[in-house]
Amino acid sequence: MNQSYNSVLLDTAVAELSKLPGIGHKTALRLALHLLRKEPETAYALGSAIIEMRKGIAYCPVCHNISEGGVCQICSSPRRDRKTVCVVENVKDVITIERTNEHSGVYHVLGGLISPLDGVSPSDLEIESLVKRVGEEGVEEVILALSPTMEGDTTNFYIYRRLADLPVKVTMLARGLSIGNELEYTDELTLGRSILNRTLFSTNGE
Amino acid sequence: MNQSYNSVLLDTAVAELSKLPGIGHKTALRLALHLLRKEPETAYALGSAIIEMRKGIAYCPVCHNISEGGVCQICSSPRRDRKTVCVVENVKDVITIERTNEHSGVYHVLGGLISPLDGVSPSDLEIESLVKRVGEEGVEEVILALSPTMEGDTTNFYIYRRLADLPVKVTMLARGLSIGNELEYTDELTLGRSILNRTLFSTNGE
Repeated sequence: MNQSYNSVLLDTAVAELSKLPGIGHKTALRLALHLLRKEPETAYALGSAIIEMRKGIAYCPVCHNISEGGVCQICSSPRRDRKTVCVVENVKDVITIERTNEHSGVYHVLGGLISPLDGVSPSDLEIESLVKRVGEEGVEEVILALSPTMEGDTTNFYIYRRLADLPVKVTMLARGLSIGNELEYTDELTLGRSILNRTLFSTNGE
Repeated sequence: MNQSYNSVLLDTAVAELSKLPGIGHKTALRLALHLLRKEPETAYALGSAIIEMRKGIAYCPVCHNISEGGVCQICSSPRRDRKTVCVVENVKDVITIERTNEHSGVYHVLGGLISPLDGVSPSDLEIESLVKRVGEEGVEEVILALSPTMEGDTTNFYIYRRLADLPVKVTMLARGLSIGNELEYTDELTLGRSILNRTLFSTNGE
């Protein structure tokens, strides 16, 4: 729907805003009018933050996480264990895992998951660079931290096979009951899997 | 929640995006990462469209609709009937009414509705300027096109009283059944009102 609001400037802003994912024409108009009501500085700050971010942020050549130029902070930190590489789907997952404070190694961002239905094949992802990295840098453990979905499992399996000939331990995130969830409401697949993968009882929470 | 993503530029963009109404921290991060994935031109176009819009758009001194400088296109159009003024809550309502192609007059944008609960009093709205405009410009009809809500009705009544001493006809939008809606699902208030305000049957749709 291409509507005109008697203002090319407003039309352009609405058109650009509605290109964002999850933002339709109506929401874009609402956001634009909101910015027009606020003091001009709000719009200037938003506009320049977007431009500066896009100008300044590149991707780390090692792990493909975002970086403000060159190798990212995680890869270049002397406190991170570079022999343990956690493989994730995207930049957001790096943030999510960092928040747990349980991973002291580095990352490898694939940029997506293998999904033939969506036309995403292994060559569209950073899998070759992972295999090369593992081979050349003497990585000792690759932790597959992909979503427990069809696409995640396909990608897990593909990477596992590609790494099969290299002397590296390949692990994956544990699957089981969510902490705090009631057994009654856990889906059958997860429950079945958590029976198969049961662990020895311990009292220190591990 | 103030999270750091190892990048001041990303943090800033996320903070600015999440100031928008209806956009929380998670959505802001999703939008920022989307812009980082797309080619840089997408982000530059969005950022500058927002800045240019805010720079270039002002409000019409006559009707308070948006305008790219000076009196707006509607007020300055020789084809619009300047004796009929449609009073609306905001700029979005001008767009909505324009789309019906049923109003050939001009507008007056109040900038809100009287709402004591939200701290909006008549002096916060463009009501004085409406009264002045009606008195000075010989307006013949004021169409109150506000939402049929408590705030809309309060504002309607306030404006009606303020215009009582002036030789102007004050009308309001018809209330009744929505076209295409089933009688069964129409709320009682609207149905009751549409019985009280029933019109003579005619076959030409008026």
